[in-house]
Amino acid sequence: MPPTAPKPCPFCYGNEQKTPPEVLAYRPGGGANQPGWSVRVIPNKFPALGIEGELNRQGEGMYDKMNGIGAHEVIIESPDHTLTMAGMSDRQVEEVLWAYRDRVNDLKKDIRFRYIVLFKNHGEGAGATLEHPHSQLLALPVVPKRVKEEIDGAKVYFDFKERCVYCDIVRQETSSGVRVVTETDRLLVIQPWAPRFPFETWIVPKRHESHFENTEDATLQNLAWVLRSTLRKIDKVLEHPPYNLIVHTAPVQENHMAHYHWHMELSPRLTKIAGFESGTGFYINPTPPEESAKFLRESGLA
Amino acid sequence: MPPTAPKPCPFCYGNEQKTPPEVLAYRPGGGANQPGWSVRVIPNKFPALGIEGELNRQGEGMYDKMNGIGAHEVIIESPDHTLTMAGMSDRQVEEVLWAYRDRVNDLKKDIRFRYIVLFKNHGEGAGATLEHPHSQLLALPVVPKRVKEEIDGAKVYFDFKERCVYCDIVRQETSSGVRVVTETDRLLVIQPWAPRFPFETWIVPKRHESHFENTEDATLQNLAWVLRSTLRKIDKVLEHPPYNLIVHTAPVQENHMAHYHWHMELSPRLTKIAGFESGTGFYINPTPPEESAKFLRESGLA
Repeated sequence: MPPTAPKPCPFCYGNEQKTPPEVLAYRPGGGANQPGWSVRVIPNKFPALGIEGELNRQGEGMYDKMNGIGAHEVIIESPDHTLTMAGMSDRQVEEVLWAYRDRVNDLKKDIRFRYIVLFKNHGEGAGATLEHPHSQLLALPVVPKRVKEEIDGAKVYFDFKERCVYCDIVRQETSSGVRVVTETDRLLVIQPWAPRFPFETWIVPKRHESHFENTEDATLQNLAWVLRSTLRKIDKVLEHPPYNLIVHTAPVQENHMAHYHWHMELSPRLTKIAGFESGTGFYINPTPPEESAKFLRESGLA
Repeated sequence: MPPTAPKPCPFCYGNEQKTPPEVLAYRPGGGANQPGWSVRVIPNKFPALGIEGELNRQGEGMYDKMNGIGAHEVIIESPDHTLTMAGMSDRQVEEVLWAYRDRVNDLKKDIRFRYIVLFKNHGEGAGATLEHPHSQLLALPVVPKRVKEEIDGAKVYFDFKERCVYCDIVRQETSSGVRVVTETDRLLVIQPWAPRFPFETWIVPKRHESHFENTEDATLQNLAWVLRSTLRKIDKVLEHPPYNLIVHTAPVQENHMAHYHWHMELSPRLTKIAGFESGTGFYINPTPPEESAKFLRESGLA
């Protein structure tokens, strides 16, 4: 459902004092923590991890523990409370992506941070607790399990083939076309092979690059259009579903990787993750990707 | 919320013809697929996997595929539509557990099935689509990723320590007591160290056994009481939350494993799995297990 009338909200103009002081804002003029910004990044008021201190790894009997060191930031995507990313201008989405890139490039200077995850929960069904359009960033002192699995898997493929698995996916999907939603000079939007969820969508840059934060300006500009176009199609075909958007990228302290390729994964939340899925890591998906790709291609939207 | 007035339901007495013919029923007298049963097991009318055919593994360009071969069954836990497992008699829950064990012991004779997953989704928020109390079973032609990870992890611990990690957990938790909910001669109920979810609960047999289907009668009888007692405490403290219950057990075609130990994992669904969790495999849990264990211990229920 699209958001309805705005309520008092810490992310709206005039309420800048209700949030921790901003760490980044795009603002043509005026002072910090004042209205006038187009995108604003703030530390999360209720952070999952704290920025100060040491990891202090230790045992407790057979168990291990450490402090939760890291950064947890909120990217406020627009001053307009009722706007969704699908409804923003291309320029506005581009500024959000700049904020993603700028924050990663700043935070990676702190070498305690080994991985930075960028994601967006849209809608209550996708875990969003605030309506105002926003993304989140967590800088972590470890490379997460799932990220490691994905990168290790890509490495096994690379060692076997001497080619990047995502570059191969781009080639095969471009050539067959059946799972393609949109193709531009720089990016490919697909419904991936063996998707976990109905309408699971990947946005993959055509040119090999392991780190999102190294994306060139022209690709970021194109990504803004592609992302918004994809969200508009999904909104139309699925009637404004909740969704999760996750940037899959290489660990920030690692050099360029020939075997890994950053991309975005967008999952509308149409089905529930239940006992079978959490017990096995397998997903039952009634919608073939060729079908969902066709629905999105034929949405009548650019 | 507890279920309200029953609606026409294929799992109720008198509607046996609306389901595929039963594969197991506990019924003191009367014919198959007639009322009079206490627990009834049927093939899922909309199975995720089909029982007939060959795997037929093949490639499609760079991708791999195979047929979805397996069994998908529903364990109807009671003829009473409005009953929840928490509200059943110990005897009724014991019969459900017998049905779990009987079906696994029957299906494992088919050597195409490498893993059998038993689970229960309770409540719409946990993915249940029918209200009538039921569990599900899937027999799979492969060992699922998550199961393999858990068993491989336990193997690494065993190789290092020459002890089962779950036996060690039972020892440490029994001795410290802070995360214990219930302890009997045969079973231990704990809020595990570093739980993913608030009130995540594990039920672990004290005696080492890798395969659920080898559980002795007396343990199964005790498990019925322990499971029902745990569910009643959770219902009281958390006001009837939706939950997933998953039996973690060894692959059916493997011999007894010294390094793996079957157990049940029960997760009330109080928080949403969102972008951070699916992107990282990490979970943010605001409730320490020592606190949730105390809540459950002090629920005033046996």
